[in-house]
Amino acid sequence: MVLKGNAIVAQSGGPSPVINNSICGVIQTWFKEADFGTIYAGISGIKGILEGNIIDLKEQREEDIAGLRYTPGAGIFSCRYKVSDDDQIKLVNILKKHNIRYFFYNGGNDSMDTAHKTFLAAQDAGWDMRVIGVPKTIDNDLPFCDHSPGYGSAAKYIAATVRETGIDLESVSTKNKVTILEAMGRDAGWLTAAAALAKRFDNEAPHLIYLPEVAFSKERFLSDVEAVYKDLGYCYVVVSEGITNEKGEYCFTSGSVDAFGHMQLSGVGISLKEMVENEIGINARCNTLGTAQRSAMHFASKTDADEAYMVGAEAVHYALADKSGVMVTLERTSDAPYKCTCGEVALDLVANNEQKVPLSWITKQANYVTDEFINYARPLILGEVEVPMKDGLPDYVRLDLTKGRI
Amino acid sequence: MVLKGNAIVAQSGGPSPVINNSICGVIQTWFKEADFGTIYAGISGIKGILEGNIIDLKEQREEDIAGLRYTPGAGIFSCRYKVSDDDQIKLVNILKKHNIRYFFYNGGNDSMDTAHKTFLAAQDAGWDMRVIGVPKTIDNDLPFCDHSPGYGSAAKYIAATVRETGIDLESVSTKNKVTILEAMGRDAGWLTAAAALAKRFDNEAPHLIYLPEVAFSKERFLSDVEAVYKDLGYCYVVVSEGITNEKGEYCFTSGSVDAFGHMQLSGVGISLKEMVENEIGINARCNTLGTAQRSAMHFASKTDADEAYMVGAEAVHYALADKSGVMVTLERTSDAPYKCTCGEVALDLVANNEQKVPLSWITKQANYVTDEFINYARPLILGEVEVPMKDGLPDYVRLDLTKGRI
Repeated sequence: MVLKGNAIVAQSGGPSPVINNSICGVIQTWFKEADFGTIYAGISGIKGILEGNIIDLKEQREEDIAGLRYTPGAGIFSCRYKVSDDDQIKLVNILKKHNIRYFFYNGGNDSMDTAHKTFLAAQDAGWDMRVIGVPKTIDNDLPFCDHSPGYGSAAKYIAATVRETGIDLESVSTKNKVTILEAMGRDAGWLTAAAALAKRFDNEAPHLIYLPEVAFSKERFLSDVEAVYKDLGYCYVVVSEGITNEKGEYCFTSGSVDAFGHMQLSGVGISLKEMVENEIGINARCNTLGTAQRSAMHFASKTDADEAYMVGAEAVHYALADKSGVMVTLERTSDAPYKCTCGEVALDLVANNEQKVPLSWITKQANYVTDEFINYARPLILGEVEVPMKDGLPDYVRLDLTKGRI
Repeated sequence: MVLKGNAIVAQSGGPSPVINNSICGVIQTWFKEADFGTIYAGISGIKGILEGNIIDLKEQREEDIAGLRYTPGAGIFSCRYKVSDDDQIKLVNILKKHNIRYFFYNGGNDSMDTAHKTFLAAQDAGWDMRVIGVPKTIDNDLPFCDHSPGYGSAAKYIAATVRETGIDLESVSTKNKVTILEAMGRDAGWLTAAAALAKRFDNEAPHLIYLPEVAFSKERFLSDVEAVYKDLGYCYVVVSEGITNEKGEYCFTSGSVDAFGHMQLSGVGISLKEMVENEIGINARCNTLGTAQRSAMHFASKTDADEAYMVGAEAVHYALADKSGVMVTLERTSDAPYKCTCGEVALDLVANNEQKVPLSWITKQANYVTDEFINYARPLILGEVEVPMKDGLPDYVRLDLTKGRI
């Protein structure tokens, strides 16, 4: 028996280029398949819901909802906020007040922790509600998933950038002889590893890749760079923002800590640039793409965008089939040709649990990735998303988040 | 009477995404219109020519030459090298030896200095040779040009990145409230200013733009950021790598100097990020695109690419029409519709001479640009270059620079 009532969708954590494909999948599928209630958006994630910042999505223009498929950023805004015990009681009261029986939370590991707590809080309060996690993270570290929606697009952008800046380095290496690209991904090296997709043949960039999965040694790094430089006359290095020393401490931190207690990282690329200049004595450059790697919809992966939509649509199917307390996953069912379907996993198994790059996919010298990684990642970056252009730039949509406020 | 002999083309300085359009224009036009001799490439600019690193371009595959139209980096490699008096004598002997009567040099201000010196050295030696400068620079600082080939593409990429990362900032401003993007352009703020093309309406990113044309004040910067943050809850800042203090000294340098005596700049973005965090007490992020902004052919401007080809083709026309000692320029002949043709200027007027953003195009508060700038820059970023894709990434060509060595 289908539970009658309303639904709510919200986003949390850092956006991916295709995160809005997932909420578009949720919203369009809800309006198509639920013949009761409406679907609300919690503006700025759980924090917004707690503040009563909720809108009815049926007031939005259909073309704007459809435009979420090619628009980066968090379309209904996001937050980083850890719910307290008091928050949870307050939250359930708000959900009850609006007769919300379907709760869709779109985010990464921390967000699934929030979704799980919401699931438990509703249960404790005797409020019958379906809670479904909709996965997202460019970091690709969600466990029980072949890969995470968002990863393919960020990987594609990073690989293209490494190919382009690698060709640049090679063609002007009379001056700056080393280029260092710093990639996101706190404790999992998936995005850093994606740079390897750029290499078409020996000697093409990148030459060295350092992941956070293996302790970083300054001495090994410097001798690696020197060896490549001696051989080619230049060297392209890709490094994770989250590299650690032998004791497991981050090599470079800014000292501040986020709401979930995660150390804020900064300056890895520029620190290594200075290290190369001071200790090897050759000029280096550092490229730090920063938030561009999680918002570059102008060069997103079609495969990734379609899968991000699929997990959103499937979340609604699951909820309407009375599933709850689970996150939708992606399961690879075939390698050649690449095929992927959805599965599910209990939220508590995902919450605060990270999937790292297998050590067997990292070379023995700990400075590159193996062909197993390439075979794994290649299908995820295939195809391009068509983005409407206006005045020479991508013409992204904006929902009117002041409309339909309840 | 047309001077019979061979031609040579070479590239110098940092590449632009479309720099190879210009040499493609030179090479294809030469093969089409000169019914004598051949055209050589000097590998790695003047430095390569001096070392005898020269190839005959008729040995290259036609499809590879054509592929230069969508390939970033310097296709025949580049250098940063200041020629000495001894070099000039040696150079003319090499040119004579290979009966080189046409010399095409593709680069920016410093490169035009090299081209001018080559012109004078040949004249002094009584070697009759046409010398034509083919302009290129993402910095847009070549004088006597409405704009420089390369600028439109870098401007388009920066504006798209600011739009995307601006939407990202706005949608997750519960955490990092300030984003700082550091743009290239040592002493001219054209690329930094290009970020303004991203803004479609009030309050959209960017909010503050700091150019090197006006002295940077830390106090004004902090109060500007605080004012925007107070108003919106977040703030997007774009800053030139070359901002200077009241005395005209660079605010942030790495201390090293290049072959032309230019100070190497680094760390402006990260320094301002730390300033915002320490002095205002809110979290900030810094994006430093680095060499990505001069090589992002995956999102280049079609207008720019076509004009870069045009200046290359026109260089050959000029040389065959017995012009010499000049650089090809771009002249805007109409605003609506935008139209642009080629002109010429004496090399010595271009050499080491920079065109800056007019002060009248910078707001009185010195923290943004005016609509005059927008009207000037908008046509330059229109249209997209189609790049062949393979395995999910741009499939750029490579000339075989070992083939046809003379």
